[in-house]
Amino acid sequence: MKKLQIDCELDYVAEEDADYVFNIQVAQHPWQRLIAEQLDITPKVQLAYGHHPSGLNRLAKTHAPKGELKVRYSATVAVDYPAPTGDEKEMTIEELPVEAIPFIWSSRYCESDSVLQVAGRTFGELPKGYQRVEAICQWIRDNIVYQIGTSGPTTTARDVLVNRAGVCRDFAHLGITFCRALNIPARFVTGYTWYAEPPPDFHAVFEAYLGGRWILFDATQLCPLTDFVRIATGRDAAETAFATIFGRVQMPRMSPDVKVLEEPTEAHVERV
Amino acid sequence: MKKLQIDCELDYVAEEDADYVFNIQVAQHPWQRLIAEQLDITPKVQLAYGHHPSGLNRLAKTHAPKGELKVRYSATVAVDYPAPTGDEKEMTIEELPVEAIPFIWSSRYCESDSVLQVAGRTFGELPKGYQRVEAICQWIRDNIVYQIGTSGPTTTARDVLVNRAGVCRDFAHLGITFCRALNIPARFVTGYTWYAEPPPDFHAVFEAYLGGRWILFDATQLCPLTDFVRIATGRDAAETAFATIFGRVQMPRMSPDVKVLEEPTEAHVERV
Amino acid sequence: MKKLQIDCELDYVAEEDADYVFNIQVAQHPWQRLIAEQLDITPKVQLAYGHHPSGLNRLAKTHAPKGELKVRYSATVAVDYPAPTGDEKEMTIEELPVEAIPFIWSSRYCESDSVLQVAGRTFGELPKGYQRVEAICQWIRDNIVYQIGTSGPTTTARDVLVNRAGVCRDFAHLGITFCRALNIPARFVTGYTWYAEPPPDFHAVFEAYLGGRWILFDATQLCPLTDFVRIATGRDAAETAFATIFGRVQMPRMSPDVKVLEEPTEAHVERV
Amino acid sequence: MKKLQIDCELDYVAEEDADYVFNIQVAQHPWQRLIAEQLDITPKVQLAYGHHPSGLNRLAKTHAPKGELKVRYSATVAVDYPAPTGDEKEMTIEELPVEAIPFIWSSRYCESDSVLQVAGRTFGELPKGYQRVEAICQWIRDNIVYQIGTSGPTTTARDVLVNRAGVCRDFAHLGITFCRALNIPARFVTGYTWYAEPPPDFHAVFEAYLGGRWILFDATQLCPLTDFVRIATGRDAAETAFATIFGRVQMPRMSPDVKVLEEPTEAHVERV
Repeated sequence: MKKLQIDCELDYVAEEDADYVFNIQVAQHPWQRLIAEQLDITPKVQLAYGHHPSGLNRLAKTHAPKGELKVRYSATVAVDYPAPTGDEKEMTIEELPVEAIPFIWSSRYCESDSVLQVAGRTFGELPKGYQRVEAICQWIRDNIVYQIGTSGPTTTARDVLVNRAGVCRDFAHLGITFCRALNIPARFVTGYTWYAEPPPDFHAVFEAYLGGRWILFDATQLCPLTDFVRIATGRDAAETAFATIFGRVQMPRMSPDVKVLEEPTEAHVERV
Repeated sequence: MKKLQIDCELDYVAEEDADYVFNIQVAQHPWQRLIAEQLDITPKVQLAYGHHPSGLNRLAKTHAPKGELKVRYSATVAVDYPAPTGDEKEMTIEELPVEAIPFIWSSRYCESDSVLQVAGRTFGELPKGYQRVEAICQWIRDNIVYQIGTSGPTTTARDVLVNRAGVCRDFAHLGITFCRALNIPARFVTGYTWYAEPPPDFHAVFEAYLGGRWILFDATQLCPLTDFVRIATGRDAAETAFATIFGRVQMPRMSPDVKVLEEPTEAHVERV
Repeated sequence: MKKLQIDCELDYVAEEDADYVFNIQVAQHPWQRLIAEQLDITPKVQLAYGHHPSGLNRLAKTHAPKGELKVRYSATVAVDYPAPTGDEKEMTIEELPVEAIPFIWSSRYCESDSVLQVAGRTFGELPKGYQRVEAICQWIRDNIVYQIGTSGPTTTARDVLVNRAGVCRDFAHLGITFCRALNIPARFVTGYTWYAEPPPDFHAVFEAYLGGRWILFDATQLCPLTDFVRIATGRDAAETAFATIFGRVQMPRMSPDVKVLEEPTEAHVERV
Repeated sequence: MKKLQIDCELDYVAEEDADYVFNIQVAQHPWQRLIAEQLDITPKVQLAYGHHPSGLNRLAKTHAPKGELKVRYSATVAVDYPAPTGDEKEMTIEELPVEAIPFIWSSRYCESDSVLQVAGRTFGELPKGYQRVEAICQWIRDNIVYQIGTSGPTTTARDVLVNRAGVCRDFAHLGITFCRALNIPARFVTGYTWYAEPPPDFHAVFEAYLGGRWILFDATQLCPLTDFVRIATGRDAAETAFATIFGRVQMPRMSPDVKVLEEPTEAHVERV
């Protein structure tokens, strides 16, 4: 068990009264225990809390007046990511739980139905299981340039496959898309992590369903998954935006910072 | 309360062993009471039941051998659609429950972010509320040709807006898209209904969130909503396919038939 | 006959040796007589001149070293735009010259085949001829917002129709697309003109083939067509870029300026 | 010099009076000499002849009454394709003639600007020249499945790159797109050829500008280029359709047949 400290600062300047829906609170998830959490907004506003219909993501909604809005979210989280063994098997459709099936379906940014040929040719002959999803991540690292500014909010996995450039969100979308094209359920996960170099930003990785459970993969390898704190889980980025804003609002600054408070000791490492 | 009898027949011919995920069972929903239900598949196969992650849709999964597969689903359902008064109000983002917000977001087939201008110009000045969503439906009927064969599985609301032709699914997608562009939460609903003329087929309508509840709208007006039995609810057609099939399978015949068994009596009409 | 003075200044800063293909020289066209013309580039470079395969556009190609590149093009042009009478007729396919037919075909930014329905519904019942193309221009002015920054180099007429916003290039593309959908040949024309307000920029309008000749239309109405000097003519913007650059080059400043030197006198107005 | 006999039969059934524009006559081109040619249409109709604005393609236009229309085109052509040496060099932008530059630009079905990364990574390090274009053809053969029905009239090179399937037209589009992304001018060529197996159909190949001349490449390798008779040349398929029809017309049968009449003798092989 590893203890991480999140300090997320979002600064907005609104030209008019506006509504905000945030999805920045860490997820309630078996792999992470929330020790302390605080969400403060200045000026003081009323917050309404709720969940995404999937039940997986926490939403906080507020209406705020024109002017500056400062969002400060801090949380202390004990993370205990169950590292994969590397032997996790792919399951046949017959073996998969019904609930995992919708994560094989094509979604807004992950048009898996249009990459069946290329997925089959590139990964179809590889041994099935954890190693095959690893091979997908490796292919993405080898073939897609990580570069800020090469993609935008409407960029899909198809675009990334053609353009060969993108950021963490695009890497995750392409990984998901290849998995689904091979009938491996896969989904999009956003979270907090630290980066080797600034600027701090939210991170996006993906999960594939192998050996009866969801396993995290980071095609970017920008940071160890042991230091990743989950925020949102969904079919793709369309369900997991960290903020949805109704009104003319600028965001001059964001800083979702993460620090390691405590490394796991031997004792902590043992999971019950 | 109105009693309806559903007899849905789906005939498949599989060139190989294949997996099937059906979403044809009527929804568990406050507006409809399931009196009796039977799902039979010939030859006899094992069925696994589950739900879509949204909790709204019932899925049945099976693995079946090469050859013919006959799916027979019959259900008796008492439907009690609470007719709208026509006075239902639009709610501000501030008033909306958090859970309704994701149904304002753009989704795969409903790219509401790209029709803000046209929605604003066409419907922006109209009085808000039920009548405005009715005006959207009327506009769709006036401007979109209902014609089988003019759209396909990848057709989006954007395409429909340009091509000006489609089927029930496309009419619903466009209605949803305009609503969302006006900040009215809206979602996609599939169901059983009877049609004035053959062939029988599944139907698609949409729901807008007005006056604190979801209200059904059918831009096609092909059949009264009092005779509509809900199957699936989702952000758009990407989450509500009646069948997902893994394998080379043909469907030579489908017949999702609906009959009215019993009209509501005075007594039934009173809702508690 | 009206005399206009063009002074076009393009300033580049190249991070490396680069190649430039300019299409900024005024067209050789019956409606305009080139009185004087000068193209200077600093530092001194070799220029190769040629034409687009269509024969309609003049291209100048150069290779220039790293650093600043200043392009100065000035021209004095006598323009004599034969104002339409307003009675020009549409021609049937049978009546049209073969050479005009390719301008009915769908092209990169003008996907006329996908707007047949909307074109037919909106303009199909109007009296044919000049007035119908005028009605198209009026519809565009009424329904599309002219706003810099709402479109980009890959925006097509379809996008403009959905987004309802764009600049002169987009207005022209949409006008062309509607015309072609109605079997009226139409093409894209770039040129110099003065604007009521800065910044100076190249302009784009379109031409429809009516009554046996090409007639200019400006859906933006930003400036009188009598003060428009033609540069390039093509199926759409894909064939008429004012500059194509091979290499990492910035353009900190552009100023395609136009001044009226001399208004037409009575005598000049008579055309032989 | 090789003598080929073309017998092209197109049978139409028109539900109404309709207009037809054909681009089926062999091109006037230095590599082929037209010995005899006849275009007959039954019932007898008036034909108007002309050229595409590029001057490269011959168009024949007619108006015909409702009912059957039989188009019979036969031609005897002496073809003398100057086989490439394999040593043809790529030219720099500086060296290229101005007229070749527009064939580097992105076009409707060949969006070269969106495959720069993948073209650079796959072919960027290869030795420049004829061998590099050959490598592009080989890559296409290795990675794209040739299969009728996998693409349609709106399929672009981008789609082919993602879907990894297509027909001759798509193979040519992708070849062109990769060439342009590497700054090699490339264009689309349609023609007559014989196929090893039925059904007979028009063929599409592409041309790359190397060593100061256009050189043919057939990424499908379905037939030797020595037996290819050119019809149309353009930026892509948008400019070279063999027939454009205005009206409700079916084409129950087409048969563009080619036979070798005479193999080149030693004497003929010598070109002056």
